[in-house]
Order: sequence, then structure tokens, then C-alpha cells
Amino acid sequence: MPEEKRSPYELLAEKSKAIHIYHSILTLLHWDQETHMPPGGIGIRSEQIAQLSHLAHEEKTSKSYKKLLEELVNLKTGNLKAKGLSKPQKIIVREWRKDFNRSNKLPSSFVKAFSQLTSEASQIWAMAKKEKNFKLFAPSLEKIVAMNREKAKILGFKDHPYDALLEGHEPCMTSARVSKIFDGLQVELKKLLKKIAAAKKPDVRFLHRLVSDEKQSEIGHWIANAMPVDRDYTRLDLSSHPFSMSLHPRDSRITTRYLPKAFISNIFSVLHEEGHSMYEMGLPVEHWGTGLCEAASLSVHESQSRWWETLIGRSLPFWKHFYPQLQKILPGHLKGVSLDKFYRAIHLVTPSFIRVEADEVTYCLHVILRFEIEKQLIAGSLSVADLPAAWNAKFKDLFGLTPPDDAQGCLQDIHWSLGEFGYFPTYALGNILAAHLFSAFAKEHPDWEGRVEKGDLAFVREWLKLHIHQWGRTYDFDELAKRATGKPISEDAYCHYLKKKYSHIYNL
Amino acid sequence: MPEEKRSPYELLAEKSKAIHIYHSILTLLHWDQETHMPPGGIGIRSEQIAQLSHLAHEEKTSKSYKKLLEELVNLKTGNLKAKGLSKPQKIIVREWRKDFNRSNKLPSSFVKAFSQLTSEASQIWAMAKKEKNFKLFAPSLEKIVAMNREKAKILGFKDHPYDALLEGHEPCMTSARVSKIFDGLQVELKKLLKKIAAAKKPDVRFLHRLVSDEKQSEIGHWIANAMPVDRDYTRLDLSSHPFSMSLHPRDSRITTRYLPKAFISNIFSVLHEEGHSMYEMGLPVEHWGTGLCEAASLSVHESQSRWWETLIGRSLPFWKHFYPQLQKILPGHLKGVSLDKFYRAIHLVTPSFIRVEADEVTYCLHVILRFEIEKQLIAGSLSVADLPAAWNAKFKDLFGLTPPDDAQGCLQDIHWSLGEFGYFPTYALGNILAAHLFSAFAKEHPDWEGRVEKGDLAFVREWLKLHIHQWGRTYDFDELAKRATGKPISEDAYCHYLKKKYSHIYNL
Repeated sequence: MPEEKRSPYELLAEKSKAIHIYHSILTLLHWDQETHMPPGGIGIRSEQIAQLSHLAHEEKTSKSYKKLLEELVNLKTGNLKAKGLSKPQKIIVREWRKDFNRSNKLPSSFVKAFSQLTSEASQIWAMAKKEKNFKLFAPSLEKIVAMNREKAKILGFKDHPYDALLEGHEPCMTSARVSKIFDGLQVELKKLLKKIAAAKKPDVRFLHRLVSDEKQSEIGHWIANAMPVDRDYTRLDLSSHPFSMSLHPRDSRITTRYLPKAFISNIFSVLHEEGHSMYEMGLPVEHWGTGLCEAASLSVHESQSRWWETLIGRSLPFWKHFYPQLQKILPGHLKGVSLDKFYRAIHLVTPSFIRVEADEVTYCLHVILRFEIEKQLIAGSLSVADLPAAWNAKFKDLFGLTPPDDAQGCLQDIHWSLGEFGYFPTYALGNILAAHLFSAFAKEHPDWEGRVEKGDLAFVREWLKLHIHQWGRTYDFDELAKRATGKPISEDAYCHYLKKKYSHIYNL
Repeated sequence: MPEEKRSPYELLAEKSKAIHIYHSILTLLHWDQETHMPPGGIGIRSEQIAQLSHLAHEEKTSKSYKKLLEELVNLKTGNLKAKGLSKPQKIIVREWRKDFNRSNKLPSSFVKAFSQLTSEASQIWAMAKKEKNFKLFAPSLEKIVAMNREKAKILGFKDHPYDALLEGHEPCMTSARVSKIFDGLQVELKKLLKKIAAAKKPDVRFLHRLVSDEKQSEIGHWIANAMPVDRDYTRLDLSSHPFSMSLHPRDSRITTRYLPKAFISNIFSVLHEEGHSMYEMGLPVEHWGTGLCEAASLSVHESQSRWWETLIGRSLPFWKHFYPQLQKILPGHLKGVSLDKFYRAIHLVTPSFIRVEADEVTYCLHVILRFEIEKQLIAGSLSVADLPAAWNAKFKDLFGLTPPDDAQGCLQDIHWSLGEFGYFPTYALGNILAAHLFSAFAKEHPDWEGRVEKGDLAFVREWLKLHIHQWGRTYDFDELAKRATGKPISEDAYCHYLKKKYSHIYNL
């Protein structure tokens, strides 16, 4: 069709799709880099990524893009100018405007400087972590904190500069709201942890017997194939850290890793990443190339992964069905280990230094620690030089332990070196949302345990499709939570879930 | 550096590199599609490829590209305008001009129509082949032939329209030259084939015992790892047809396939693709993004793959070294099979219908058949309707057999459906060049058999680097042949090699 015959909406939809195609190619470049790329390919890979990212950014911030968008909507007020748009089209325009405003607030000189700084900083961080030497990383982190404070100023905020950063990861949240939720959660988690510490620990030795790579591969594919997912749309590979990367709802790939002495980690990694992947596969494919076919937020994404990893994947009915199969795959390891013993073992709760290895009860405490430190760094009430001491003091308060070094303390996560502030809270918010949603799911499906015990997982996915996946960015975190359950988000359901489950397991 | 401070050469080099980066990303998209992509990804993959191809084409044919190139060189005469260029830079400019002139001769409306036609035609061809029904494909092929005749006219030629098409695949060649070489070759091959037909055939049954995928994987990686190649720059995967795809000299990947009842095909596929890959890895990486870091032609590329697959990979010294190792991998299959028996078996010569399954002696006859038919189709002396009859008659003349159906006859190859005319001759020219080069290599390394027998392959690759790889497009097919051997290309060395080898094996 000749350009002049098409509406501004159609022309912008075409541009939006072209940008999404660039991003889907970028996703493949990253996926390949983490899974199959020969090591020698890293140099050219960086150049490929840089060139394509630049192109996508240019397109998104171009004058012609802005001009078309301004024909559709008032960029300042959000008032629609275009007539005759359908309901989905109105939402698509709303999200285009949001994205445009956010990506155009930061001057490109700032974006470039920030990208250079963090690209160097992440390498320095890796070295500092390896050498357990925070001082190596401190100068980079100081610059990153300063730039994030600057970023918050540019982006704007009402109450706390941290709000501006949080918004980039969970648009619904403010630090005040997160604090309120986390404060309630912290009290309950500490109480629960104290009780569990006094109880008898399960025997977990059989979970740490050596399992060969061949067996691990069998286990990974077995559990992936058991998920209610069309295998034509996905695949499972190995990478050093498990992840999910979606090129498109019909090409959404996950990875796992093999820890020779912790085969169970392989299983929960697959379940976690399948949860992310099912969200992407459940987005309305007919709207691909617009916000209607994008996840609502990082927190909502994390709610989907944790749903499958914990609420389903660590449930007793799940293992009633799958444990006999696992015993057949690992007869030498699991012979004589009863389902009850296995179920208790996968629920070991024990304070530890590393977030990514934490159990369900302590996990959110790790997140709360980071949230509080981030807030102070961005507010300027904590200096980078004082970070290790502050970290260790808060850690002692939460877990009763002191990290032996900064590699097991404030240097453990890559996020800050990448410039990410405001990301960590989404990990806990995801857990909270998952349990919040689950309460409604369980009410609607009072027989869920019986069905899962029979290996039926399809109806679980359908429920999530109906209440979360199909909506893309139509509704935000708060709206999704409320629409699915009738209640606004709070930590209550999550605390209730943990208390009930762990009281049973530990006879509290 | 600000744009105005840089020379037209520097600016064009930047554009050239950007185009190469697009192509290297396209290579990854194709590689992934053939190896790992979930089947559901095909829709979005086509869109990714189309968008990026379009971008690369736009860049290559843009006004600004042309303007810069015209500042460097007279596009018509090829006379350099730029002063102070180094010798390599002069060659780079020469090749930029060649590429530009060729890609700008065809109007973009023609390119688009051709691309649409062949995209549909290749699907129709697949169906026609499956149904063994040439008539299904005939209307598409008629259009493709017509467009190729049109293309030849646009591109221009002196003697024969086929020359214009041949030039796109082997710029050195004309149909007259190819005819002369192929005529000589045909006579010798037919003589040799006749003698072999009268001799005793080797027993090959042990080559066709079932081998499991696990063993095939072990065999593939074993032989790949034995090649004189830095494994950090490459990898081996599975695909339905073996191929080599190079993103960059530091990321050059190959594939193989497992035929359950023909493990030897796996070995020769790996050797063939490693030959292609070594060429790409041996190109001067410091010139990546220009013609100096590109292969000279398809024929030269094929000379490298056939060198490793046949001249080295089917040589007795090679198997003196590797056969005992293979026996250890497949003890059940090769127990009691002597090296002599194995060596004879992998040299079975037998006329067959399918080119890609042909042995060394009959292979080029398959190519000659296609060359003659292509020439007639393009000249207009053969109509598409008469193609099957012409094919079968020529096949009978060359092999003494008549294909049972067109799927095993003129429908067997995908090339024509993709619009490729002038490609087939490069397969034979590659064999001819390989043997031509090998005669010089053997003269320079009279001890090559002793060294290869000890498993030393690095010096073989070094010789190829020195005489072929390092030059990129500095020299063409003819110059490479002559510089390496002192003699112009001819079929003599290839005929000599085949006669000597097969006379020995078949006691002729």
C-alpha cells in the first residue's frame, strides 16, 4: 500500500514491529553467546550487538517516530488524538507513549556514558569478586551510584529519588509502597526463620550425591517435557546461569545448568525458566510487535517463574506424581528414599550468604537487604565506602551471620555493576504476587491438588493464561493482582503460604 | 573522529564493515534455523531475515555509498582516483567496485520479482520432487529460466548468455573455457569408469552396519578434533544437510548428519565442511569487512573442501594413521576388517542417480550433465518441457543408466528452484583446482605421505594458508592456480590423480 494511504497508526505499527524484529534478533545473538558460540566469536558478537542496538535505538527515538506518535496522542497529557481506534489499539498507543517518553527523557550522551561506564564496571566487578577485594570495585560503583542519582533527577520523582529507578523495573511501585510490603514481610519471615532454626533439620545428603552429565541431561529434558508446553515453540540448552529468552511467542528458549552434586537445582531451574517461558508463549501472538504482546513488568514475570518453581514445583501433589518417575531415572540415588523424606529435603531452610542459593523462607530477606541498601545509596545517606560494613551489619540483623568476605557479601551480585538499581525488589514482589494469585487459583480450583497429583498441569497454565498471560501490558501489576483475586496486592497471602507450608513440614 | 576529517576510503570502509556485520548476523540466523531453532520459530525467522537483508541491500546500493566509491575509483573504467592508497587498499577498492557494479546492474524491481518467484518455486519444487511429478514444477522453472535469460541480457556477455550467469559464481570462467575443461575430463572419466566397471568391486557391507547416534556423535567429534584447527573458533552441530557457515574467521561453524547405516558419510561430511571452514578461518582477519577477507570464489571454496575430503581424507597415509583409532571407536563393526579392505571399500565406484551420493570418479559426470543442460536452457535450445527427456538421454550416455523417475533425475537438486544457474560447474572446478594445487603441494613436500601417516596435518593447512587462504580476493581462481603451481589451470592433474589412484585400487 502506498505510504500516504496508510493511517499514522498503521505506519507506527510498522515501525514498532521493525523495532521488535531488531530486538528479537538481538535476543538470538545473546542466546547464542550464552549457549553455543565458539569462544573466539566474542569480539565480532559485541560489534553485532552494538550495531543492531544502535539501529533499534535510532528507530525508537527518531523524528519520524515522534511525529507519527504525536499524530496519535498528546505526548504530555496522554490524551488520544486519533479517532476510531479499537480498544486494543488505544492500549497499544498508550504503551507506545510510555515507552517513548521514558526512552527520550535521558539525553543520548548520558545513555552512552552510562553504557560505557557499566560495560567497564562489570568487568572490574568480576575481578573484584574473584579477588574478594571491594576496594577494586568501589571507584566504579561510586560513579554508577552518582549516575543513577543523576538519572533519577532527570527522570523525575515525587517523594524519593529511588522511585524514579524503581519505575523502570516495576512501574507500579514507589519505595514507600515497597517498604510497607517488605516491612510486614520481614517481621513474619524473621519469626518463621527463628522457629525453623529451633526445629529438626531434614536429612538432605542424598540430594548431594554425584550425578553424571548424561543423567542430568535426561532429568532436565524429562521435567521440561512434563510441562504443559508445545515443544515446537521452545528448546532447552545449557548455560553457565539458567535463563529464559524469548524471540517470539513461538520461539521461546530456556537453559539450565548441571551442578554435579545438586541435581535438584537442575529441576528447579527448568521449572523456573519454563514459568518465564510460558508467560512469553502465552502472550497474544497476533499483537506481536506492540506492548500488547509484552510482559507487564519484571515483577509479574518473576511471579510466573516462581509460581512453577515453588507453588507448583515444590508442592506435595506435584511430587506425588513425579517422584516415582524421578526414582526410576536415579534408582541408585533415590532407592529407599521415601516421598516424605524427599519432600522434606527439598524444603531445607538454612540461612546462607548467597541469594541465588537461598531457600524459600530466607530468599526475600536477601532481597530486603539489597532494597534497603540501594535506597540509602541513592538517597546519599550511605556512602559506597561504607557499603560493606552496612551490608554486614544488616546481614547479621536478618540472618544472625556475618559474611566471611565481600565476595559472599556485597560483591555477590552482578546487578549494580551493570548499573541496575531498583531491580532487586521485583524478585520479592514476584514471589508475593505469585502467592497472591495462587490464593484465587486455589479457591477457583479446590481440587487442584488432586488434579496435579494425576500429572494434570494444563489447567494450571490455562488459569495463568486467562488471568495474566493474555493481557500483555493491558493491565499493570496492581490491576492484574486485583482483577485476578478481587483484592489489592499485599504480602498476606505469601506469608500465609509460607507459614502454613513450613509449619507442616517442620512440625512447628 | 568527526566525519569530515576522515577520508572517503575510511568512510567507505566503515560502511563496508557495517554491511559485513549485517551479513554475519544473517549467517547466524540461517545457522540457527538449520540447527537449533524450534520449528515454531520459522515465521518470525523469515521476517528477521527479510528485514536485515533489505537493510544490507539498501546500504550497499545507497547514494552515499556510490558517492564515496566514485571519489575513490572511476566506476566504468576502474581507474583509481584516490591518492596514497596502500597496495591492499587498492585491491579492496577494486573489489568494492566489482561488487557495486554487479549488484547495481539489476534493477531492484527485477531483484524483488526474482526473489518472490524463487521463494515460491523452491516450495513447489519440494512438492514436485516428493510427488515425483516434474509437471508440477515445470511452470515455475519456465519462469525462472526466462528470468535468468533476462538477467544474462541485463548483466551483459560477449559470447554466450550463460557466461553472464557463470560469472556470478566463478568470475574467471566462460562457458567456452568450462566446456574445454569438461570435455577433456568427460573423456577420461568415461574411460576410467568403463575399466572400473569391469574390475572386481570391493566388499563394502561393513560400512553399512547400523551405528547409533551416540557413536556417530563420538565419530564426528573425533574426526573434527583431529583437524589442525583451533576449536575455540568453531563448533560442530547436526543439520539435515551438512554445511559450513562462517560468521567471521573466529566463529566458523560446521554441521554434519548421521545416516544410521552409513557412518562413513558422517566422517567425509566433517572433513569436507572443515575444509570450507579452514578457508574462512585462514582469511586475513585484520581485513574483515572487505574483499580481502572473503573467499576468492565458489570454485576456490570447493577446492578447499574437496582437498580435505578426498585428496587428504581418502588418502592411504591418512587412514594409516586414523584407521586404528576408528577401529577402537567401532570395535564391533571393524573387527577383522583390515586397513586394506577398509581403504578399498571407501573407494567403491558405482554409477548412481544422485549427485550428492556419488563417488569421486562419477561425481564430475553428474556436474557435466547439469552444465550442458543449463547451457541449452539459457541459450533457448532446450525447452523446459523437454528437460526430463534430455536429462535422461544424457544420463544414459554418461552412466549407461536411466533414472527411474524425475525425483532421481532432473528434480533431485534444489539449485534451479532457487534461481541458481551457473553454480553447478563450480563443484567440478573445485575438484579440478584441488588436484591442480595438490600436484604442487606434493612436489614441495615429497615426504607428505610419511608426515600425514604420523597424524601431522598442520603443515598441510599451512601450505593452503600460504597459497590460498591468506590472499582472500587478492587473486582470482586462475591467478591462484597459476601462482601456486606455475601452470595454468587444466583438468590434467585431476585426471592423473584419479587414474593413478583407482588403477592401483582396482588393479587396472
